[in-house]
Amino acid sequence: MLKGVVVILKELKIPEATVSRLSVYSRYLTEVAKQEIVSISSGEIAEGVGGTPAQVRKDLAYFGEFGTRGVGYNVKQLNQEIMSILGLTKCWNVILIGAGNLGSALSQYRGFRERGFQIIGVFDNDLNKVGLKLNGLPIYAVTQMADFVEKNDVSIGIIAVPAEYAQDIADILVETNIRGILNFAPVVLTIPEEVEVRNVDLTVNLEVLTYNIERR
Amino acid sequence: MLKGVVVILKELKIPEATVSRLSVYSRYLTEVAKQEIVSISSGEIAEGVGGTPAQVRKDLAYFGEFGTRGVGYNVKQLNQEIMSILGLTKCWNVILIGAGNLGSALSQYRGFRERGFQIIGVFDNDLNKVGLKLNGLPIYAVTQMADFVEKNDVSIGIIAVPAEYAQDIADILVETNIRGILNFAPVVLTIPEEVEVRNVDLTVNLEVLTYNIERR
Repeated sequence: MLKGVVVILKELKIPEATVSRLSVYSRYLTEVAKQEIVSISSGEIAEGVGGTPAQVRKDLAYFGEFGTRGVGYNVKQLNQEIMSILGLTKCWNVILIGAGNLGSALSQYRGFRERGFQIIGVFDNDLNKVGLKLNGLPIYAVTQMADFVEKNDVSIGIIAVPAEYAQDIADILVETNIRGILNFAPVVLTIPEEVEVRNVDLTVNLEVLTYNIERR
Repeated sequence: MLKGVVVILKELKIPEATVSRLSVYSRYLTEVAKQEIVSISSGEIAEGVGGTPAQVRKDLAYFGEFGTRGVGYNVKQLNQEIMSILGLTKCWNVILIGAGNLGSALSQYRGFRERGFQIIGVFDNDLNKVGLKLNGLPIYAVTQMADFVEKNDVSIGIIAVPAEYAQDIADILVETNIRGILNFAPVVLTIPEEVEVRNVDLTVNLEVLTYNIERR
């Protein structure tokens, strides 16, 4: 069945907002499964994540028929399908670049490990930090980064350095086999098409908030 | 003219992705204006932010006709219109709750101040931190928070505490005149409708990234 699903996905353009919500649904379903609840309705999912039942049904409909009318969704099965869609049936090796405050916060962000993202190394260009640990993770020099990525099958690099260094770090990363970059630096990176990049822009979030406040 | 725009907005449902991109365009236009460039095309904006000209034109079309065909947009005027739409023609008083690593990173995030968001106080429930400063900002006890919000005309609270404390903090905030909450804790908050809430979910970003990687 999964193969069929993947074929459909390649033809459909799924809105990014839907993908984001699938991630949220999946984490909620993981919590629900821990309580040994077997089935769940779209209404219950919506209530759990702060959405609407119609939105939940619409989001899940992109991936075919998971639920049974009147019965709801099997919690574990639905969660497994979503995790498979999101690429989370395996672990991802991740490195973090930047051992400052943001890097420190990210290195201990519990949510990452719970979802299969393993930060296995931290890199910084401050040689005073190299050799120390950041929340238990070894800090290496940026000059060691390319070698580390190749040897440890690293797929994702999280950039948490000041804006002025972010492009240099990205340039090193894209020369390796890295597949994706999550960028926290407030700068638009120039990245070749082979590497997927996603910018986390903290200011955007505040501005969407003020937009919504002002529209009330 | 602005009044007319606002009336239109209330009737249109503008996608959140468009609002997010407006924020990005605006910061790019601010940079461009510093270089004393007077006019700009949708193609140049798209190149600057890593989008497509068609997307830029579509986003700006929600707000009426800003540009002139063949001439492009007046940089300063367009930026001013977008900032007005986003509610950024005034300063917003902001408090930060949580003086840990994430709070520390946020307190020195330059992008906030540049856009008119002023963090004027930090709150923490660790009494050992109270009275100290976080990157120059005074740290207060959470018990002082409600009083501080009222006295200092605070509109936005940024929650950067561990998940288990986030709802308690939100409960205190919604009892004040606060208008919006930006929540970094990985938990769904129960917030009354009068208060706008926006969740920054760091895991979602990683999962949209892996989704995109796997779909390649």
